Amino acid sequence: MKTLSIIKIGGNVIDNSEKLNQFLLDFTALPGDKILIHGGGKIATELGVSLGVEAKMVEGRRITDIETLRIVTMVYAGLINKNMVAQLQAKGSNAIGLTGADGNIIKAVKRPVKDIDYGFVGDLDESSVSSDTLDSLLKAGLVPVLCAITHDGESQLLNTNADTIASAVAVAMSSLYDTSLIYCFEKRGVMRDIDDDQSLVPVIRMGEFETLKNEGVVSGGMIPKLHNAFEAIKSGVNAVYIGKADELPQIDQQNFGTRLIR
Amino acid sequence: MKTLSIIKIGGNVIDNSEKLNQFLLDFTALPGDKILIHGGGKIATELGVSLGVEAKMVEGRRITDIETLRIVTMVYAGLINKNMVAQLQAKGSNAIGLTGADGNIIKAVKRPVKDIDYGFVGDLDESSVSSDTLDSLLKAGLVPVLCAITHDGESQLLNTNADTIASAVAVAMSSLYDTSLIYCFEKRGVMRDIDDDQSLVPVIRMGEFETLKNEGVVSGGMIPKLHNAFEAIKSGVNAVYIGKADELPQIDQQNFGTRLIR
Repeated sequence: MKTLSIIKIGGNVIDNSEKLNQFLLDFTALPGDKILIHGGGKIATELGVSLGVEAKMVEGRRITDIETLRIVTMVYAGLINKNMVAQLQAKGSNAIGLTGADGNIIKAVKRPVKDIDYGFVGDLDESSVSSDTLDSLLKAGLVPVLCAITHDGESQLLNTNADTIASAVAVAMSSLYDTSLIYCFEKRGVMRDIDDDQSLVPVIRMGEFETLKNEGVVSGGMIPKLHNAFEAIKSGVNAVYIGKADELPQIDQQNFGTRLIR
Repeated sequence: MKTLSIIKIGGNVIDNSEKLNQFLLDFTALPGDKILIHGGGKIATELGVSLGVEAKMVEGRRITDIETLRIVTMVYAGLINKNMVAQLQAKGSNAIGLTGADGNIIKAVKRPVKDIDYGFVGDLDESSVSSDTLDSLLKAGLVPVLCAITHDGESQLLNTNADTIASAVAVAMSSLYDTSLIYCFEKRGVMRDIDDDQSLVPVIRMGEFETLKNEGVVSGGMIPKLHNAFEAIKSGVNAVYIGKADELPQIDQQNFGTRLIR
């Protein structure tokens, strides 16, 4: 099987034009087929402030009301996605920027209202990703760049977590490709000692996850992140990496972040 | 050769949600391969007002400064394009929304500064359209929906006239498809008597254009529109139609607007 890298970047890269430029160069240099997935960043919040649309929070959770959906559609699918595509084109990647509505690539379900009404937020399931359409684009030599907007198939766009999209795309593409899922975030990866930048845990096998949790090496927000990563591996993803965007070129030497494997 | 319809809609359809919904239904019902091209509408102007970005005009011409480019990128490529794609998906068209930067589909040149600096505006030439990439998308069963944003291949997005994009796409695709170019606008087509809605001129052959100009049947803004249409026909487009969006279903009976042919 051909290899496919699914790489997710977040606001810490998107909001810094120098970091973003370097990342897009490194991304372009990566061999094999690739899909880029990006979240938002400060720009959507700033546009909301300019337009007098306040961030709605309920019990500490962000709510996507109709005004917020308009803003994230403009910023994620328009401003960020298209500028990123234009930059990738200039660097030699034949990028194509997409939401989940485009080509029905990711069909979500509006999150059911239980205790909290999250508004226009989409949840994914195992049938959400159209792997055939993504495969057609890859075979045409294109590099899909997906933003964190999906649709419900009934005309409604939905705001959808970019980490979740990345994981669902990686799982769905695993039947066609030997897939790696790469999360770029602020830290170098899982650290044995949070104060020691040299204490990176280079590899975690599925069976070691419980031990690392018990030892406290994996704690807080890292627990669900790793849990989801191992779920993706159970569903066919070859390896999941968690690391710092500026160390991406080292992935060739398997020297990037923490590598999670079966 | 397979048939391909390239259809352009403008603000008069986009700004009216009922009209747009009906148009998207009619568009979906059209047989054969299709490409939709849309301009802007009032939304970009309204967003500009909300953000305190004034429309810049020089000698009656609109200037795309960097702030205006941000706004049109958000509104055309984000808000309008993605909502239209989600609606088309719900109606059964496998739409994929794109700018010219995506897949390098339309590479423009920033308009040179002569008397007026138009800012970030792109002009097209005969090599602008990547017909192979559009063909790959059509062959994958997708329906490209292009907005009026292109790029220069060096990271810069450019605001580009949607009529010009429609014409350039139709010409470029004529080597691969039997193409029709369909402009939807406010009127039923070329009218012999502007006050008589029954005076539609159903067909104009290239050789009749001069006579109709001399008779005053074609005047004002219609002259450059028809001139450009006949240029497209000279360059390989099979027929150009100019008519009203809500009469689109009649195109099957060759009963839509004014049909321009060789």
